[in-house]
Amino acid sequence: MLPFEKTEYQHREKRIKKSMEAQGIEVLFVTDPANMNYITGYDALSYYVPQGVIVSSYLKEPICIIRQQDVYCALHTTWMSKESIIPYPDKYLWEPKVLHVMDFVGDVLREKGLHNKRIGVELDSYYFNAHWYHRLEKSLPDAELVDATSLVNWIRGQKSTKELEYMQIAARIVEKAMYNAIENIDVGVRECRVAAGIYSDLLNGTGVYGGEYPSLSPIMPAGERTAGAHFSWTTEGKYQKDQLVYMELSGSYKRYHAPLTRTVFIGKPPEKVRETAKIVIEGLNVTLSTIKPGVTCEEVEQAWQTTINQYGLEKESRMGYTVGLSYPPVWTENTAYFKPGEKTVLKPNMTFHIMPGMWLDGYGVAITETIRVTENGCETITKFPRELFIK
Amino acid sequence: MLPFEKTEYQHREKRIKKSMEAQGIEVLFVTDPANMNYITGYDALSYYVPQGVIVSSYLKEPICIIRQQDVYCALHTTWMSKESIIPYPDKYLWEPKVLHVMDFVGDVLREKGLHNKRIGVELDSYYFNAHWYHRLEKSLPDAELVDATSLVNWIRGQKSTKELEYMQIAARIVEKAMYNAIENIDVGVRECRVAAGIYSDLLNGTGVYGGEYPSLSPIMPAGERTAGAHFSWTTEGKYQKDQLVYMELSGSYKRYHAPLTRTVFIGKPPEKVRETAKIVIEGLNVTLSTIKPGVTCEEVEQAWQTTINQYGLEKESRMGYTVGLSYPPVWTENTAYFKPGEKTVLKPNMTFHIMPGMWLDGYGVAITETIRVTENGCETITKFPRELFIK
Repeated sequence: MLPFEKTEYQHREKRIKKSMEAQGIEVLFVTDPANMNYITGYDALSYYVPQGVIVSSYLKEPICIIRQQDVYCALHTTWMSKESIIPYPDKYLWEPKVLHVMDFVGDVLREKGLHNKRIGVELDSYYFNAHWYHRLEKSLPDAELVDATSLVNWIRGQKSTKELEYMQIAARIVEKAMYNAIENIDVGVRECRVAAGIYSDLLNGTGVYGGEYPSLSPIMPAGERTAGAHFSWTTEGKYQKDQLVYMELSGSYKRYHAPLTRTVFIGKPPEKVRETAKIVIEGLNVTLSTIKPGVTCEEVEQAWQTTINQYGLEKESRMGYTVGLSYPPVWTENTAYFKPGEKTVLKPNMTFHIMPGMWLDGYGVAITETIRVTENGCETITKFPRELFIK
Repeated sequence: MLPFEKTEYQHREKRIKKSMEAQGIEVLFVTDPANMNYITGYDALSYYVPQGVIVSSYLKEPICIIRQQDVYCALHTTWMSKESIIPYPDKYLWEPKVLHVMDFVGDVLREKGLHNKRIGVELDSYYFNAHWYHRLEKSLPDAELVDATSLVNWIRGQKSTKELEYMQIAARIVEKAMYNAIENIDVGVRECRVAAGIYSDLLNGTGVYGGEYPSLSPIMPAGERTAGAHFSWTTEGKYQKDQLVYMELSGSYKRYHAPLTRTVFIGKPPEKVRETAKIVIEGLNVTLSTIKPGVTCEEVEQAWQTTINQYGLEKESRMGYTVGLSYPPVWTENTAYFKPGEKTVLKPNMTFHIMPGMWLDGYGVAITETIRVTENGCETITKFPRELFIK
């Protein structure tokens, strides 16, 4: 069963085509797996080989190009007719300098009479590397290849009712995982055991809804390692007395994500940790009260920065990003960010992960929320006590 | 603590430099996270932003370029001196068309006097997209950029004693997960619950060693979906009577992987499933008895193909690939494959995932092993009964 009505996919396609038209793009070749999913529904763990979706007003519906052995995955998860699923044989993978999947893509476009069009490609995305680009260019000498990075990502910004429902489910899932993880953390407990419990909760889901694997594995450093922004658990480490821990997790449902971060201290937290947590929470609360339709992203960041600056703190990195549908390696949507200079204007039903993580000298504190911009403000999709947890 | 002695990293660097020299590459810029880890030890969940490692005989040791907030991750996980960790500020991420991390990389190379060298880049890898390449090219007008895809991957082929130890641990972990998953599968059990159990086992590890997240989430379709090669579990599905299930899982330890696949039938398997499993196992056994130093990859594939052809079966896709150190999106090493035309000669301590998956009309069977080429043959690293499991 498709996660959305066929009409919702078609509505998305219509909006994408409108954006293409505005940018003078006649054919769009999408390789980002989240964008492929958004357009067609395609959902499989096959994104480590080249694959893509073609959108064009010259076509009656999108075309999905995938590996031969994934045909059934495409037939089973997309809304289009069988004719729009075009598989390539494995030999296109075997000697990528001799015969490449992009040669096959070029041939498909030629066959459809689209080889001499203005073709948009996702130049700056995870799944379109330099070699693929060169091969596609070579395969399409009569085409004009133009950059269409994030064209679809921007369309994904404002979520539909159904998409928000899925993010709510992802939020219920991550809340449960976070609750149990905080419960499980204790002196002498193995870090990997807590991680195992987290994944178990993320996948078991709620009583009604099962979970999916998150696009990024939990970030969950302990002790000094909290000073780094992207540490996993350690394989043999055990939690110790007087240790600081933060956990950045996300539930996933139908590939929709709702990240949540909380910080825990095992023992009596030192003044500086308590103080940092207080400032982060105050900054986060000010951020939440600033967000509403019509406000720009830079204004949101400014409100946060001003708040923490009062206490002598400063955050150099962006403090929020759009979130929703995603595949590995990460759950960001790669469009709007809460950062200086970002002029994007907030609109209802945009969804963000507000990420006020502070990585300081020898320790770090992160307390975050996934939010939705409402008609006149914002609400958190994640619901969890906003505090420094003490164990 | 580093997973390897400093001398092992230095030995790797030496071998990489030798290969660079043979290819006339003066500077190597590595962005594949597994290759970065192999050279420096760098291990963090930060691979979704641009980062890289520079190797050159002009440098006393490799340089690691990472995001400012990941400095502590680099200091904590690499063997080099502090001076060789060079962080870039977040502003290089904010407007990738205006200011890009590759501009920063260009500046670092210029500062080191390496801007006019012959520089190898990993053109055809997951983490070096078309835009990065264009920016690096623009940033280094005096350099000659050449393709060095898989240069480091090939060096990684023959494993050291310590690397094999880690793969053995990953194997013990995946065996436990597979054992329990087969135990847990039953009529009416939720697929997501079995998946949760698998992740729990993969991360809890053995009594002694904790596990890490695998580079690819388990592939575990049930019923008709076994006809597709890359399905995950479903969020609400429950296992049913007379259903076929296969599970492709991997343990991970210090990022070393040992994948294993088994097929299960819930009930009395129909003749065609029983027969396919028998053929796959026979083909796998013939493959194992063919593998030894001096044999080429195509000869191995030929032995497999000939065996299954006798029974009227044929496999179009490659039936094995090198495996070891990896990060998402997948655990293949992207070097040698068991496929027609592959002239790579097997050597002792190369490690492969033998992947005789058959995706047929309406069902699929996969029974696989991770193996090591020994001095005079091969041995499986994964140890698990090689049969069709009946529940």
